[in-house]
Amino acid sequence: MNKLDFVIRQFSRIKKKRFESYVVNRIWHLINDIDIKPVTQQYVRRKGSFSLTDLYFPQLKLHIEVDEPHHERFYINDQLREADIIEATNHKVERIKIQGGIEDVNKKIDEIVLLITEEIEIVKKDGSFEPWDPNREFNPLFYIDKGYLDVNENPAFRRIVDAANCLGQNAKGYQRAFIPCKAYNDHYLWFPKLYKNGEWNNSLSEDGITIYEKPTDLSKLSQHLENVRSKGRTRIVFPRVVDNLGSVLYRFKGVFALDLDRSNLENGAIYTRIATRFEF
Amino acid sequence: MNKLDFVIRQFSRIKKKRFESYVVNRIWHLINDIDIKPVTQQYVRRKGSFSLTDLYFPQLKLHIEVDEPHHERFYINDQLREADIIEATNHKVERIKIQGGIEDVNKKIDEIVLLITEEIEIVKKDGSFEPWDPNREFNPLFYIDKGYLDVNENPAFRRIVDAANCLGQNAKGYQRAFIPCKAYNDHYLWFPKLYKNGEWNNSLSEDGITIYEKPTDLSKLSQHLENVRSKGRTRIVFPRVVDNLGSVLYRFKGVFALDLDRSNLENGAIYTRIATRFEF
Repeated sequence: MNKLDFVIRQFSRIKKKRFESYVVNRIWHLINDIDIKPVTQQYVRRKGSFSLTDLYFPQLKLHIEVDEPHHERFYINDQLREADIIEATNHKVERIKIQGGIEDVNKKIDEIVLLITEEIEIVKKDGSFEPWDPNREFNPLFYIDKGYLDVNENPAFRRIVDAANCLGQNAKGYQRAFIPCKAYNDHYLWFPKLYKNGEWNNSLSEDGITIYEKPTDLSKLSQHLENVRSKGRTRIVFPRVVDNLGSVLYRFKGVFALDLDRSNLENGAIYTRIATRFEF
Repeated sequence: MNKLDFVIRQFSRIKKKRFESYVVNRIWHLINDIDIKPVTQQYVRRKGSFSLTDLYFPQLKLHIEVDEPHHERFYINDQLREADIIEATNHKVERIKIQGGIEDVNKKIDEIVLLITEEIEIVKKDGSFEPWDPNREFNPLFYIDKGYLDVNENPAFRRIVDAANCLGQNAKGYQRAFIPCKAYNDHYLWFPKLYKNGEWNNSLSEDGITIYEKPTDLSKLSQHLENVRSKGRTRIVFPRVVDNLGSVLYRFKGVFALDLDRSNLENGAIYTRIATRFEF
């Protein structure tokens, strides 16, 4: 997908929210920098709970919330269960309240635009800036160069094989969601659906640090617990999610370990996050 | 309706046409001048026929046409029969073709924005510029000051009484659509529906110079022809139309006279335009 398509689809998602649409369009057009990626209606996890922000600039770790006049609030139709929820600890959130006439609203937008362009200047100067490049952003080579995956940077891949190769598998493709790691002994790569699906009834806690796993058919739980106990207990986890334009992503959520004490026939298998960063 | 509401509603009308929406939003936000009124999807009459333009700046007599990729073309759902069709003789039309990536499209938009801002400079300097003011634009006082109504300036009123008072009636309100003119002897003010409606089967020719009028109940035609022949034959005509946000307008379409030769039991009553301008 090229940048024009991407931007137009992001804007198109919020077309029913007319005030939000006006603000988001105006901010992006006035910033007027196609190196900056805009994301609309992004689910974020902050302070152990999650919410939705109206406009998100991943490169700036900056979110804009538009407080619309009450009657304009719509409910979100997304399938939350498989939504792509990013980590937003230490991200900045700016709010803009729609109030008064066009002069007032445009003035508030001008202030936010100024703030954003100053922020862009800062990251461009300090060397941490990566220009938005749709062809590079899910590329394993980018992360291999970097030398690590960190939950706080929200790395993600379009395919299981990309994530796996980022961790040294050197494979052509995978159909499986659970893969022994060649390069790191006793580690597994895991690409679970962390919501109720055909075979599994899984979930991730709201704070992102606990994974609950149970087979839908509970008669299989005992055997499953035996299996996971007998295997390497460390899992590098990339849950399968659907991004806000409907495409599948495998988003790195950390390194998890089987919690032997809490896993049992009542709770199912429980995994606890033991690291938010994995260095190659 | 305030300017913010107006602009948001104009943009909201084209939300399904995603590329057009991108171009229209970007042009308006980059012009960044709330004295300029934007109108989306305006029906216009040019060279004897009519069409639809994607973005129209009435103060600049300038239209923008967006050529979207083929698959994005939608059909217009408006009730064309009562659509507000403005006169666009001597208006300028700029076209923008959506082609290539975001750099190409933004570059074309930049060129159009430059052209528009230059045009704004020109009209602001030559003294012909009226800043967009939603409270003044349908006000009879504005036209009384001006001293005339001219089809080429597309004057319009929200209520019959406003148009009538513009022509010296000094009334509080009207329920009728056909009013003898106090100030101008032998003239009538006429606010017809120029499409098939309950009692009448009327129409305006595509070139805007001929009105056809017949009662739906044809047994009443003979009596009607007698009536119109016996009355003053000059009509100052403000057809009732619905603007692109769904509000009623009475748009001045010229001074018409009964065509005695062509009016008969076969054709009904026929009126021909005898002037595009009426001076008070």
